[in-house]
Amino acid sequence: MNFMQEAINEANFSLKLNEVPVGCVIVKGNEIIARAHNLKENNKDATCHAEILAIRYASKKIDNWRLTGCSMYVTLEPCPMCAGAIVQSRLSKLYIGTFNPSCGACGSIINLIENERLNNFVNVKWLYNDKCSSIIENFFKLKR
Amino acid sequence: MNFMQEAINEANFSLKLNEVPVGCVIVKGNEIIARAHNLKENNKDATCHAEILAIRYASKKIDNWRLTGCSMYVTLEPCPMCAGAIVQSRLSKLYIGTFNPSCGACGSIINLIENERLNNFVNVKWLYNDKCSSIIENFFKLKR
Repeated sequence: MNFMQEAINEANFSLKLNEVPVGCVIVKGNEIIARAHNLKENNKDATCHAEILAIRYASKKIDNWRLTGCSMYVTLEPCPMCAGAIVQSRLSKLYIGTFNPSCGACGSIINLIENERLNNFVNVKWLYNDKCSSIIENFFKLKR
Repeated sequence: MNFMQEAINEANFSLKLNEVPVGCVIVKGNEIIARAHNLKENNKDATCHAEILAIRYASKKIDNWRLTGCSMYVTLEPCPMCAGAIVQSRLSKLYIGTFNPSCGACGSIINLIENERLNNFVNVKWLYNDKCSSIIENFFKLKR
C-alpha cells in the first residue's frame, strides 16, 4: 500500500471541507491504525490539525500514548505544535510529502524533531511528492 | 480571583491522579472559560497536556478557534507542542508559574512564542511562584 497516497486522500477530504488541505496516516507494522485530515475550521478548534487528530486516534486504537514503532506519513511538514506532538507521542518515523516554508518545524524554519537541546530524535524521511506540494499551493492560490 | 492559584488547584488534581502535576486556566475578561490538568497517563494520549485540553475546552465554550483576547495561566513553562498550540490558537497572553529546564519552549530551551522566523508573538509574563516550582520538583523527587 502507498501510505503517502493514503495521506493525500485524507488531504483531499480537507479540501472538500474548505480546510487547508493536509492529511496523514499512522502505520504500525504494515497496517494503517489511524487516518486524519485537518479539521480546524469545521471543528472550530486550532488543535485539530491532521497530525494531532491522528495521534489521538492511534493512541485510542492501541490503548497506549506511546506510539513507539509506529510511522506517520504526512503530506505537509508539521508546524511546531504538531512536531512537538510527534515527539511527545514517541512516533518512531516521520515521512513528509513536502516542506512548509512558513512554519515548518522539521527543518524549514526550526527543527524540533532532531534537536539535541530538547533530546528529541524522530527518524525523518522526506518523500517529496508533487501531489503534496500542488494540493497546498493550489489551495492558497485560489484563496488569494 | 487569583488565576495562577486556580491553575495550581488544577495541577493538584493531576497530582492526585499520579500525573505530572501541571494545571492551567484560560481567562476571558475576568472570567475563567476553561480549566484543565494534565491527563496524559489517565487518558493514554500524549496530546492530553493541560494546555491542549484547556485550549480545546475554551474553543468549544466560545465556539471559535481564535482565542484572541484570552489569557492562559499555566503552572509550568509549556513544552514545544503546547507552546505551538498556544500560538495556533492566537491566545493573547501567557502567564507562566515556573520554568521547565528540560523542555521549556518559551525561552528555557527554545522560544516558539516570541520567534521572528515563525512570526509568533504571544505576550509572555513570568509569575514566578514557589508553589508552581515545588509541586513539580516534589513530584519528580518522589519518582526517583
